[in-house]
Amino acid sequence: MHMPSHTDSPIFCTVDVVLLTLRNDRLHVLLLPRDKVPHQGQPALPGGFVRAQEDATAWHAARRVLREKAGIDSPYLEQLATYSGAERDPRGWSVSIVYYALVPEALLGAAASGAAARIVAAHRLPALPFDHRDIIQLAVARVRTKSAYSSLPVYFCGDTFTMPQLQAVYESVLGEPINKVSFRRKIAELDMLETVEGEMEVGKAHRPAQFYRLKRAYSRRLSTSGKGLGG
Amino acid sequence: MHMPSHTDSPIFCTVDVVLLTLRNDRLHVLLLPRDKVPHQGQPALPGGFVRAQEDATAWHAARRVLREKAGIDSPYLEQLATYSGAERDPRGWSVSIVYYALVPEALLGAAASGAAARIVAAHRLPALPFDHRDIIQLAVARVRTKSAYSSLPVYFCGDTFTMPQLQAVYESVLGEPINKVSFRRKIAELDMLETVEGEMEVGKAHRPAQFYRLKRAYSRRLSTSGKGLGG
Repeated sequence: MHMPSHTDSPIFCTVDVVLLTLRNDRLHVLLLPRDKVPHQGQPALPGGFVRAQEDATAWHAARRVLREKAGIDSPYLEQLATYSGAERDPRGWSVSIVYYALVPEALLGAAASGAAARIVAAHRLPALPFDHRDIIQLAVARVRTKSAYSSLPVYFCGDTFTMPQLQAVYESVLGEPINKVSFRRKIAELDMLETVEGEMEVGKAHRPAQFYRLKRAYSRRLSTSGKGLGG
Repeated sequence: MHMPSHTDSPIFCTVDVVLLTLRNDRLHVLLLPRDKVPHQGQPALPGGFVRAQEDATAWHAARRVLREKAGIDSPYLEQLATYSGAERDPRGWSVSIVYYALVPEALLGAAASGAAARIVAAHRLPALPFDHRDIIQLAVARVRTKSAYSSLPVYFCGDTFTMPQLQAVYESVLGEPINKVSFRRKIAELDMLETVEGEMEVGKAHRPAQFYRLKRAYSRRLSTSGKGLGG
């Protein structure tokens, strides 16, 4: 065995989670007050040490941290990137494997209601510890890029939604209006939705809108397309 | 300080590098015989432990490993993903932060000539240790996706190249023919190339072709576009 020698400085391994939602048509992120030094009490991304005895992988660690610290169970968690180095944390050489998830506002609001959680606009972040500002900015860029080619924004929706509601979500994420015809063609191409029988939007003067939901097969993965919206 | 307690199992942190090149119009990857147990002598991705005393970040560790093990200095290294968990390495709970780079075949050939290195086709991989097969497959998928929207394939070229040579490289990476007019429009849009004055392709019956090279500003970063080839 050639393991790193004990004279090497230890490297510690953490996970951080960027939990994004749409509020007032803008991307928002969940911040929690840090329960530890350094930066104790300061708002930061939910995160924690990987526990080798307990977590099968870093993904499982991220899922556990989210459940323990934010009370949110198993959203669709995707790896964003890994931040590492000697300088990013005063405690020593650290690795943070970062995950992100998109959740409906209602879910995040419920989770955030108890604790001192804050849901802040991604374009108006407060001072943040470590490299958390860079991390959030990368997550927002990744979600925007990916959204044009995949079902990703559907995770911002509740269980069921109408086509105009879904289009509004895509437009909020991408930050631009989308042509209705090409939007519907793209959604059909992704083949990720099914109609919800018997459920119709009521209270409108014109004919009621059909409700849709994500097909069961897509509840834990993305549907992706080679061509972007409008492509 | 709330560091992980000493009763926790140690987590060890490594880097692995997927070095890709084009050979016979196909993506190939560099493998080196492992110098350590487990799997000693078996071809595997170049990799090694992060050294907290020596490496500023995991990116620096990947660059050092590539220099030490393959004699290749500072290609454009991009993070691919991080693999982690209790099961992937028999030595214990491990993290591998994986980087990838695209290099011209001539560079890889020179690096591989001395050692017992192998350059193998990405679609015909031998048996590989750990999760190295999954890692290579993810790298190939990433390069294909990214290539349609960026200058990435230029890193497969030598210092200078003609437009037909560059188009052939893009076609090899994407695995499909590209319309010449939309290819030239896309390349112009990326605005990453400059002409090499006074250098022309010779020995052809028709008029000599202009040589191009990557603009200096792009030698260490990507030029990306919102629209893909043909978009």
